[in-house]
Amino acid sequence: MTANKTAAILIIGNEILSGRTQDINVKFIATRLAAIGHKLEEVRVVPDIPERIIRAVNELRAAYDNLFTTGGIGPTHDDITSECIAAAFGVPWEKHQPTWDAMEKHLGAENFNEARQRMATLPRGAVPIPTAMTIAPGFSIGNVHVMAGVPRIMQSMFTGLEPSLGQGTPIAMRAVHGIGVKEGSIAAGLSAIQNRYPMLDLGSYPFYRETGGGVAIVAKGTDETALDAAITEAESLIASQDITAIKGEPPV
Amino acid sequence: MTANKTAAILIIGNEILSGRTQDINVKFIATRLAAIGHKLEEVRVVPDIPERIIRAVNELRAAYDNLFTTGGIGPTHDDITSECIAAAFGVPWEKHQPTWDAMEKHLGAENFNEARQRMATLPRGAVPIPTAMTIAPGFSIGNVHVMAGVPRIMQSMFTGLEPSLGQGTPIAMRAVHGIGVKEGSIAAGLSAIQNRYPMLDLGSYPFYRETGGGVAIVAKGTDETALDAAITEAESLIASQDITAIKGEPPV
Repeated sequence: MTANKTAAILIIGNEILSGRTQDINVKFIATRLAAIGHKLEEVRVVPDIPERIIRAVNELRAAYDNLFTTGGIGPTHDDITSECIAAAFGVPWEKHQPTWDAMEKHLGAENFNEARQRMATLPRGAVPIPTAMTIAPGFSIGNVHVMAGVPRIMQSMFTGLEPSLGQGTPIAMRAVHGIGVKEGSIAAGLSAIQNRYPMLDLGSYPFYRETGGGVAIVAKGTDETALDAAITEAESLIASQDITAIKGEPPV
Repeated sequence: MTANKTAAILIIGNEILSGRTQDINVKFIATRLAAIGHKLEEVRVVPDIPERIIRAVNELRAAYDNLFTTGGIGPTHDDITSECIAAAFGVPWEKHQPTWDAMEKHLGAENFNEARQRMATLPRGAVPIPTAMTIAPGFSIGNVHVMAGVPRIMQSMFTGLEPSLGQGTPIAMRAVHGIGVKEGSIAAGLSAIQNRYPMLDLGSYPFYRETGGGVAIVAKGTDETALDAAITEAESLIASQDITAIKGEPPV
C-alpha cells in the first residue's frame, strides 16, 4: 500500500464570500476523501476573478496530488472556471466535440445558444466526468477535477469521479465525549496520549448544548488498532474526572 | 468615504478538513463584514501544522487589510494558533500579565494549571478582544484578529471586535427568482444587465427544491440605486421567459 495521496479543494464562489450561501461541499468531499484514504490538506475560497482563480489553481495543483474545484461551470457570465483552468494549464479553450454533439442533440439546435455552447467548450485535454444528472459536464484535466457548485450536482460528479481517484488506506475516526469535561483539566493527560500514539491525530473539541456542554475527544488515522487503544485511554482520562465517558460524538 | 477595506479568513482546523465539523463561521463573518462595508476576498482552511499556519498567516496578512483567524486557541495540545501567530510576526510568545492575573483570579490558583496558563500566553503586542463569554481571550495583533473556533464564542468575539474595524460603505444584496427559469436561456440577457451596471456583481444561482427548481439572480454592491435598477431589469428578464418574477431569495 502506497502512502495516502494529498488533496485540496478550491471553491470558486462570490456567493460564499458574500455570506449568501452556506458551503456544504467541503464536508461532503472531505468525508468521502477520508473514506477512500486521501488526505485533504487545504481549502481555499476565491472570488470570480480570473487572475485569482488561475493563481490559486496553479498553486494548489502544484502543492497537492489532486485538486477539486467547485463552482463556476454554468452558462452565465459569472461562470468563468473553465476558461481559467485552460489559462492555468496554458492550453487552448476549445469546442469539446462529443459534449457539443450530445448537448446539441439533447437540447435541440434551436436551444443550443451561445451561452450553452460555452458549457461544451473545455480546456484541450479535458476529460468529462461521468454523471447522469446533467448533460453539461464537469471535467478532469491533469490532477485537477472541475465540478459544479450546486451540492447535488457536485455530489453526483464526485461519485462519478471516485473510482478513478485510487484507493488509499481509509482514514478512520473514533470519538468519545463527556458532559461537563473541561478542556483545561484534561489537556495534560490528552497530550500524553497523543505522545503515545504519534501516528494518530488527537483533537479536543468543546461543545455546547442547551442541556449542557462538555468536550469531545476525536482520534483520526489509518491504524485501527491504535485508534481503538487511544480512544480507550481517552475514556479513562474522562473517567479520571469522575465523569461518564460516552462513546461517539455528542448528540447534535 | 474611503474605499472599502479587504479581508480574509483563515480557518485553523483539522476538524474541518477531516469532514468532522461543518464550518458555519465563514457565513457569519462574511455577512457581518458585508454589513460594515468590508470586502471578504479569500478564505483558507489549513491543518494544525505550525509551518502551514505561519505561512498562511503571513501570506494573507500581507495581501489583505484584515485577517480573521478561527480555531486553535484553547488549552489542549492541538491548540497552537497563538504560538504560530507569534512566530509569523517574529515576536516573543510571552505571559500576558493582565490576562494571566484575571484567569488566575477567576479559576483559582489551584486550577490555573500549565494548560490554562498557555491561554494567558500571547504574542508580544497582542491586544485581547473584549468578550463576556470566556475569560480566555482572543486577541488582535497588527491587522490579524485571532478568534475561537466554537461558533458562539467566535460570534461573541467578532461582536467585541467590530467597533474597532471601521465602517465602510455597506455591501447590500438584492435578489429575485423565478420557478422554471433556465440559466442557459437568460444568460445573454443577464450578461447585458451586468454590462450596464459594471459597479455591481451580478450572480446567477440555480436552485432545486422538491416543489421545483429555478434560478435566483443576485445583485451585490454599494450603490443602492443601481441595485434597485438592476434587479428591476432582472425581473423583466425573468418575465420575458413567461415566468413570474418573485422578489427575494427562493424559500429554503
